[in-house]
Amino acid sequence: MRVNDEEFAASLKIRRGGEEPLSAQLYRQVRAAVMFGEMPSGSLLPSTRSLARLLNVSRAVVVQTYELLAADGVLQLQAKARPRVLAPAVFEGAARKEVGEAEFALSERGRRVSQQHRYMAADGARRLLSPGRPDIDSFPRAQWGRALRRAAAQLSARDSSYQTTAAVPRLQRVLQGHLLQARGVQAKSEQVIVVPGVQAALYLCALIFGDEVGAALIEEPGYLGARAAFASCGLQMSAAAPGALAQKVMDMQREGQAPQLIYTSPSHQFPLGRRMPVRERLALIEAARTCGAMLLEDDYDSEFLFDGRPLVAMQGLSPENGVVYIGTASKSLLPAVRLAYVVVPEPFTAAFASAQRNVGALVNAHVQLAFAELIESGELRAHLRRISRDYAVKALRLYELVHEKLSGAVQAERPSGGLQMALKFVHRFAGVDDVVVARALNEKGFAVNPLSAYCLGTAQRGLVVGTADAEESICAEFCDVLLAAITSAAEKKQSESVG
Amino acid sequence: MRVNDEEFAASLKIRRGGEEPLSAQLYRQVRAAVMFGEMPSGSLLPSTRSLARLLNVSRAVVVQTYELLAADGVLQLQAKARPRVLAPAVFEGAARKEVGEAEFALSERGRRVSQQHRYMAADGARRLLSPGRPDIDSFPRAQWGRALRRAAAQLSARDSSYQTTAAVPRLQRVLQGHLLQARGVQAKSEQVIVVPGVQAALYLCALIFGDEVGAALIEEPGYLGARAAFASCGLQMSAAAPGALAQKVMDMQREGQAPQLIYTSPSHQFPLGRRMPVRERLALIEAARTCGAMLLEDDYDSEFLFDGRPLVAMQGLSPENGVVYIGTASKSLLPAVRLAYVVVPEPFTAAFASAQRNVGALVNAHVQLAFAELIESGELRAHLRRISRDYAVKALRLYELVHEKLSGAVQAERPSGGLQMALKFVHRFAGVDDVVVARALNEKGFAVNPLSAYCLGTAQRGLVVGTADAEESICAEFCDVLLAAITSAAEKKQSESVG
Repeated sequence: MRVNDEEFAASLKIRRGGEEPLSAQLYRQVRAAVMFGEMPSGSLLPSTRSLARLLNVSRAVVVQTYELLAADGVLQLQAKARPRVLAPAVFEGAARKEVGEAEFALSERGRRVSQQHRYMAADGARRLLSPGRPDIDSFPRAQWGRALRRAAAQLSARDSSYQTTAAVPRLQRVLQGHLLQARGVQAKSEQVIVVPGVQAALYLCALIFGDEVGAALIEEPGYLGARAAFASCGLQMSAAAPGALAQKVMDMQREGQAPQLIYTSPSHQFPLGRRMPVRERLALIEAARTCGAMLLEDDYDSEFLFDGRPLVAMQGLSPENGVVYIGTASKSLLPAVRLAYVVVPEPFTAAFASAQRNVGALVNAHVQLAFAELIESGELRAHLRRISRDYAVKALRLYELVHEKLSGAVQAERPSGGLQMALKFVHRFAGVDDVVVARALNEKGFAVNPLSAYCLGTAQRGLVVGTADAEESICAEFCDVLLAAITSAAEKKQSESVG
Repeated sequence: MRVNDEEFAASLKIRRGGEEPLSAQLYRQVRAAVMFGEMPSGSLLPSTRSLARLLNVSRAVVVQTYELLAADGVLQLQAKARPRVLAPAVFEGAARKEVGEAEFALSERGRRVSQQHRYMAADGARRLLSPGRPDIDSFPRAQWGRALRRAAAQLSARDSSYQTTAAVPRLQRVLQGHLLQARGVQAKSEQVIVVPGVQAALYLCALIFGDEVGAALIEEPGYLGARAAFASCGLQMSAAAPGALAQKVMDMQREGQAPQLIYTSPSHQFPLGRRMPVRERLALIEAARTCGAMLLEDDYDSEFLFDGRPLVAMQGLSPENGVVYIGTASKSLLPAVRLAYVVVPEPFTAAFASAQRNVGALVNAHVQLAFAELIESGELRAHLRRISRDYAVKALRLYELVHEKLSGAVQAERPSGGLQMALKFVHRFAGVDDVVVARALNEKGFAVNPLSAYCLGTAQRGLVVGTADAEESICAEFCDVLLAAITSAAEKKQSESVG
């Protein structure tokens, strides 16, 4: 069946003088007409001569188009005859079929791995006091931009090859020196592996040290990312108060449920802010050693201790390859930088790097070089000094205001560092649902989280609030809104229990 | 037991005028002495006054150090008495124990996930003709550096929050428009998710669409990254020739082994370079649909087709949410950029993004913004035009030289695009071990891979060679070395079989 030459030509919209060459426009449109049009298999298209004349293009353009479509299997060319449409029956059926999604589904593992483990504060215009979020206004844009630009100019063939996956060697060397000096981390530079965030580090550890049937131990309340990583890998989770981890390891072992992995944030426990004393660290290392459990030491914000220096990293205390040290640029710079570093025990470095490559959790080389430059030039240290001072002022301001205005409702520890603070409901409000209170605050623009969301077992009630943007007016508003929210939630609860 | 004050003071190396404050130096060193020294629990350190005098520092410095160590649980301070070392027994034991690694091991899954699936060419000074590797000298350093710098200046709070994980919205919009126009990809911008490479895309798909007991289908010979991703996720693999995928899906289904995932590179099959005809694409889409298998369309280098335009993406042909489209900047820019993009079928976009976040395979926001700028400004298009011309010249040069000088040993298809070419051993050399030949070439600085390494079943023998650096002198040297290597391998084989 011949198509009508004039109608067919008129259906093609050829634009002259644009970016796209005529032959490309023709190819694209004829292909679409054949595939998505109403043209049945066997239809005969205009001859090259006829179409060229009707479109006022050279015949070579039409010949080239038809040849490409023939190579695609869409047209059949015949000497001295019109080209024949070959759209196969299967396609005609597919194009007309209704869209349905019954046949495609997540796998069983897919449902587990894509579970949302985090509390999501409503995504409003203001996201004030968001826990753990640094202040974007203090990000060293100029220095970072310069360092990135220099990295673009300097990137070598070696740093850019498919072979350079675990990290750019220069950054490995710089971080090795930095971590030894600042944190007492004992490692060769090859043990330093760069990943796109703490989450990737935790996931990869769970993947290579954990099994589907294994157990893991986390802190209660504790970092949700660890929970998400372990749960994604199918591990069964137990939790213990930050001070009771070693005892819990012993208990689990006695019950035949020894953990394969233990997550801890000893420098500045998330979200409570506790600093783990040395004797507890040593007991935990020893307990983990007795059952071969790998300790994951999340040192996410030790740069921000307001007083004194952080303790030496647990990695430096363990003589037996039993600690994975994890640090990050998410707090010192920004989460969007997506750069964290893992110091993997030497016997497992190659396995970690190989798993990382198979998973594909790798970091842009320019970003790695820029970060190395910021450390080497001292700009990162200067930046940290500036923001530590600034963050201390803000955190203490919020703490003092809460202490002064809200001591009848919540209690807080004096912050010793970091970018968040936990406010526990006092006894009188212990029964109030902290999710209700958090939602009320979310609605007013405060991206705070309920403390219970960080708990696996017995929920502790309270709020976790960020401090990096704790300006005076924000703190004052926050206190007012919180007091109203908690009072209202308590009254509602009481009227319900009376009614 | 009192330590000797003079000896103790002499063991501390205090540097004046350096970067590190005196109190920090003292804290670090006393801590180390207590923890790693031979000092038993209960030892009595010098008084603050005595140590200050011996070190010639202010007493306040020593007081501060001792107080920090007391807070750490390392020292016990007593009024009018020397501080007492509290190193707990568990630590004394640990410090003296020999380093052993018997207790710590990879998990069963860890051994699987960290398997090395790729052939590794020896890592010499020259890495010539490495398959799939772009030419670093053509990387647009200046434009990329400027774009990164602008991104550093412009990054907004929204783009930098912990909530912005799947991708920076601007890049999602730009890619959506670009992929629609250039590749016929049909999607909303929210379906575009940015990952640190094709590998991450494949891994995440295997994770959410595959199960530990599931099956997957790959091309033979085919891309090793797909094999690594599927194997890491525990999937059982089958393989079929690129032209026989649809039939294989039907066969597997009939045998009750229907695949959950199918990997294909239809625009330019890796490593053979084949372009899948439209009717085959439609048949594959239909076959996959009948068993609910997700098709992963790896469109890694469609920007480099030397003649004509690439076919519309399979994603655009499938009306039923059954295709995941994957593109990358690894070929158009550099692998070290670590940016790829996935168009996920709408019903699974949220699950994919959530799994991505739990795994932590996220991409730096500055890199995302810079890539968006390169597309929007037209700089990427201009760059692609330049390098396509250049790559075509080089690939055809290598092809012609191989054809002319080596037709008695290997055969190749005329390259139609991309950055690599397969050279199959001719019948006479079909029995020669291509790994031996590849190793011989690797030793001479050619990072080529054996074709058999890309095969799961019946190995095809040959070499996969890169073409992006195929300068005239390199091509000539390569032909000589290859001829010598294959002849020598064949002779060795013959003398063995005679002997």
